[in-house]
Amino acid sequence: MTVTPQYIVNGKLDAQVSPLDRGFAYGDGVFRTMRMTENRVVAWPLHYSKLMEDCNRLDIVCPSSDVLHADIQRLNEDRVPDAVIKIIVTRGEGTRGYALPALAQPNRVVIKSAYPLYQESNFSEGVSLHLCQLRLGHQPQLAGIKHLNRLENILARMEWNSSAFADGVLQDIDGNVIECTAGNLFIRIGKDLVTPDLSLCGVAGITRQRILQLSEALGLNIYVDRVSMADMMSADEVLICNSLYGAWQVIDFNHRQWPSQPLASTVRQLLQEQS
Amino acid sequence: MTVTPQYIVNGKLDAQVSPLDRGFAYGDGVFRTMRMTENRVVAWPLHYSKLMEDCNRLDIVCPSSDVLHADIQRLNEDRVPDAVIKIIVTRGEGTRGYALPALAQPNRVVIKSAYPLYQESNFSEGVSLHLCQLRLGHQPQLAGIKHLNRLENILARMEWNSSAFADGVLQDIDGNVIECTAGNLFIRIGKDLVTPDLSLCGVAGITRQRILQLSEALGLNIYVDRVSMADMMSADEVLICNSLYGAWQVIDFNHRQWPSQPLASTVRQLLQEQS
Repeated sequence: MTVTPQYIVNGKLDAQVSPLDRGFAYGDGVFRTMRMTENRVVAWPLHYSKLMEDCNRLDIVCPSSDVLHADIQRLNEDRVPDAVIKIIVTRGEGTRGYALPALAQPNRVVIKSAYPLYQESNFSEGVSLHLCQLRLGHQPQLAGIKHLNRLENILARMEWNSSAFADGVLQDIDGNVIECTAGNLFIRIGKDLVTPDLSLCGVAGITRQRILQLSEALGLNIYVDRVSMADMMSADEVLICNSLYGAWQVIDFNHRQWPSQPLASTVRQLLQEQS
Repeated sequence: MTVTPQYIVNGKLDAQVSPLDRGFAYGDGVFRTMRMTENRVVAWPLHYSKLMEDCNRLDIVCPSSDVLHADIQRLNEDRVPDAVIKIIVTRGEGTRGYALPALAQPNRVVIKSAYPLYQESNFSEGVSLHLCQLRLGHQPQLAGIKHLNRLENILARMEWNSSAFADGVLQDIDGNVIECTAGNLFIRIGKDLVTPDLSLCGVAGITRQRILQLSEALGLNIYVDRVSMADMMSADEVLICNSLYGAWQVIDFNHRQWPSQPLASTVRQLLQEQS
């Protein structure tokens, strides 16, 4: 089922964006990608809180939760059981140049797309990952933010075409493991479940944040730390995660195979119970 | 005189941009800012050649020179004597996710704005520059390209409000001097005129490229090299440049003053004669 995405711009269905919008001109904005099941955005409070935090870091005025909620409801009058909701918030229109406009009115776009047709084996067995050649640059002032400057992710994603790879692993310029192009990453070493530090680069996703809270339920020490490629290659287990698929186990990466194990499935179940 | 910018999107006057455009979603595109005097874009062949080069580096299909030229002419039916022309080329619309669409049709936008009201003293005496706190991250795969991922420039430009500063100087994460937020930079040490190496970050502008060709006319050795902050602070002269103002001398930066000297004015004159 291919469904054309539907969208709403500043509350107007099928409206378009001004070419003077600074999101278009400079990537001057932030976004969220979320799953909607049964007419509910999964983990909405966390998504909205992250949207606000990201807007604050760029000094962009964040639309209210109510306004965004109304946009989402209008897009969902057909009440499909499963869909993807994307929210883009930009600084708004500007005159020429990088200086902030005196009175920027943020623009908001909400887009509804079909839920992706993931391979069932991604959930039941696990996934293979590509090792990206592109290394993420360090920029502490943008690290963690899901902003609209995503050329690094695009160049990395251009490195493979095969559907054999569910995603690609990104290292930073120092060779530390950071994330996937479209998700975060955890490695398990014994009773420790570690996700890379994102203070210099990478996007700090909501699902990563939710998994960091599962220590008690999983019986694991879960924390943030620097992760080297050697750490990852010697890990007992590797998981990747995002808001659409939840969590998948990695069973093949960089000439290493891992046997199927139950952690990713347990994590998915816990995430689902809590949403 | 404040003139509302006029624009043309894929050949249609006053058209808008789809929220599914990847330039809007991810900054997946490139741009040019050019001066138009007497109905002619200054240094058009160099600008178009750089636009093609930047498109190629991102694997975006570049519109033909003729098509862009026709857009510019349609915007300029009022034939103002001096204006700014901006061209944006994006990869086009995409479905959800970073993977390239199978058949991307690039979108092109041409915008005409008023020529900026620069202070006359910028030309006659020189300018003061702010020293930016933000340090540019290293990303060799994007360095030099004038792409639409410009949040670093925006955050740097947010550091000052005073009109006393004509621009701000950006260093990279290693503390090397790279460029200004909206222009390139040259330092003169005796008979050497040096512009920073941009292989790890920064935007390689057309005016920088043109000045690199002026060795004979200026009687200086002009070349690209690493420039430290110490090099800049001890330079005999500092120039900044872009396609709109040409070149300005820096007379005040980071607690140092330089006396007014004739090089910037000579450079401007040479650039004008050759355009």
